[in-house]
Amino acid sequence: MSLGFAITARDGAARRGRLSTAHGDVETPAFMPVGTAATVKAMRPEDVAQAGFAMILANTYHLMLRPGAERVAALGGLHRFMHWPGPILTDSGGFQVLSLAKLRKLSEDGVVFQSHLDGSRHQLTPERAVEIQRLLDADIAMVLDECTPFPATEDEARQSMERSMRWAERCKRAFRDVSGYGLFGINQGGVHAAPRLASAKALTGIGFDGYAIGGLAVGEGQAAMFTVLDTTVPALPNDRPHYLMGVGKPDDLLGAVARGIDLFDCVLPTRSGRTAQAFTRFGTVNLRNARHQDDKRPLEDGCDCPACGFYSRGYLHHLARGGEILGSMLLTHHNLRYYARLMEQMRAAIEARQLAALGDRLTRDWARGDIEPC
Amino acid sequence: MSLGFAITARDGAARRGRLSTAHGDVETPAFMPVGTAATVKAMRPEDVAQAGFAMILANTYHLMLRPGAERVAALGGLHRFMHWPGPILTDSGGFQVLSLAKLRKLSEDGVVFQSHLDGSRHQLTPERAVEIQRLLDADIAMVLDECTPFPATEDEARQSMERSMRWAERCKRAFRDVSGYGLFGINQGGVHAAPRLASAKALTGIGFDGYAIGGLAVGEGQAAMFTVLDTTVPALPNDRPHYLMGVGKPDDLLGAVARGIDLFDCVLPTRSGRTAQAFTRFGTVNLRNARHQDDKRPLEDGCDCPACGFYSRGYLHHLARGGEILGSMLLTHHNLRYYARLMEQMRAAIEARQLAALGDRLTRDWARGDIEPC
Repeated sequence: MSLGFAITARDGAARRGRLSTAHGDVETPAFMPVGTAATVKAMRPEDVAQAGFAMILANTYHLMLRPGAERVAALGGLHRFMHWPGPILTDSGGFQVLSLAKLRKLSEDGVVFQSHLDGSRHQLTPERAVEIQRLLDADIAMVLDECTPFPATEDEARQSMERSMRWAERCKRAFRDVSGYGLFGINQGGVHAAPRLASAKALTGIGFDGYAIGGLAVGEGQAAMFTVLDTTVPALPNDRPHYLMGVGKPDDLLGAVARGIDLFDCVLPTRSGRTAQAFTRFGTVNLRNARHQDDKRPLEDGCDCPACGFYSRGYLHHLARGGEILGSMLLTHHNLRYYARLMEQMRAAIEARQLAALGDRLTRDWARGDIEPC
Repeated sequence: MSLGFAITARDGAARRGRLSTAHGDVETPAFMPVGTAATVKAMRPEDVAQAGFAMILANTYHLMLRPGAERVAALGGLHRFMHWPGPILTDSGGFQVLSLAKLRKLSEDGVVFQSHLDGSRHQLTPERAVEIQRLLDADIAMVLDECTPFPATEDEARQSMERSMRWAERCKRAFRDVSGYGLFGINQGGVHAAPRLASAKALTGIGFDGYAIGGLAVGEGQAAMFTVLDTTVPALPNDRPHYLMGVGKPDDLLGAVARGIDLFDCVLPTRSGRTAQAFTRFGTVNLRNARHQDDKRPLEDGCDCPACGFYSRGYLHHLARGGEILGSMLLTHHNLRYYARLMEQMRAAIEARQLAALGDRLTRDWARGDIEPC
């Protein structure tokens, strides 16, 4: 295997590990901020690192359209281009082709689509997806897959999954083994146990550096998602990282870590930061709400981010109402720091075999709701 | 006088000085970044300071409407509200009432207008303008004035100026003297020498901590502006700071410093940063232009800002095309750093009695234009 992964502690199904890549190590369980177009929106990369993140995710679909994978390669690769010296995982573009692109046409070969930016025609095959991710210089590349829509019957889910498995095999063949770089397979199968297990078996047979679970957080709800994890995670190779794609809310992360997930990515903390939604120990807070306008208190007591260290809720409310860029900057920073602290807490709890107790405490606090204005 | 001002060197009409306020000293000539609604857009305040600025400007008009002067006062004043511990100058709101507000009605008493945000009715009198600026805790407050429209006949300019002088006197009476805080008068009179000189005489008679020149950079052109400065600056008290409001481009600053101006403010570096226009030693650069897309070079060789230290023109172009917030953050930072370095160069040149030589060098470089792509 070209990516190192050492599990250093366990607590039930939860794992504490260290993933080693060409651009550095990642303590797991870990959350990856999303840097869609080679920028974690409203954040300087050095602040993303300082907030407590070792690895970020970037989007193949966006980058292949603009500025183009060959251009990123000519400009020194994604790390240099966006000034992120740490590890980068890229998705394969499959999910965004289905959610963003126009006039897409799927076939066994791959997918042909029109750019949502300028209508230009593009093709993405398993082989091209791997090539693009190599041009971007991603430490971790993902196989091209078809994200099965929700809802889907078991039959539909199986057929879609089987094509994804054939694509996974082509990706594996196209992937060039280099030390510190790896390719992850993606488990599909909708909310149905049988295709999920068949997918796990197929991926294990091909052999990947890590195993992702895709096609979740698409409307099935948390209970159904956790049921899929309960079925699927035990069927994945135990000694390799498990990555739950596109998830999620803080309680999703908690439940998934407890079920053996090591990696996450989600736009929630960054996108929420740009819409004045903040994550705190006592649940989410909408800073556009007028009840904050005279509030001298920090957003979250005890948080060490700049938003909480230097500003009142009254000021953050003022920035949010005015649509000020600084509001997006500060709330994104806060939300990312909240997510980083949540992962730090979970890592420490697994080491101490106290994850269940941490979960009880977090859940109680989230349910308590935001503190009343003074 | 409640504000300290010491002139430490002269070079022709240019002055090198130090302005002392309740919240710290300002080395002059100085440029003030504009923090309209209690934020220098797309910048963290600590980065504004680190870029080389001691004092910023905030807008009375915007802050009286949202969040309201009384609210800012209850939240600890503007310094604490926006986390800017250094000196702050506030304008009086007169200029924005005329340029932004709806249904404004001017009378001898003051001006009644509707907010451009929500249509609510507000009144601004000389007394209220001073009170608002005291509530904001501005180190330097400006008198309420009427910014004479351009073009205006000499007669129109005189009548408008005379009302501004009566308002200036009322502001002075309303202003409470506190150590480290000051009130500046504003010279008006359009582009006509006689009303400008009459205004200078009237303001000197009233007596202010500093003297601003208003009503310029409104379409009269640089030559006419410099002619007004040539007439007016010598008529202002020599031992007090001279502030040219709302100016300007780098060559405006150079010409005005040479004519005895000590303070400037302008949205140009910050607004340009949000529209992908960058100031460099070799003139302005439009980063949206496709010629930058493959360019590995920094925006400006030798600049010590983060945009130039960590990124290629190709990346900055990519951010600009995508409308990414990081693009606004980086280019605003660069432009402010450019302005700060320009002021540093001018201060050093005045000390060395080399301002004319610096001006020749700057002008030659600006005219040379941006370096060719490699």
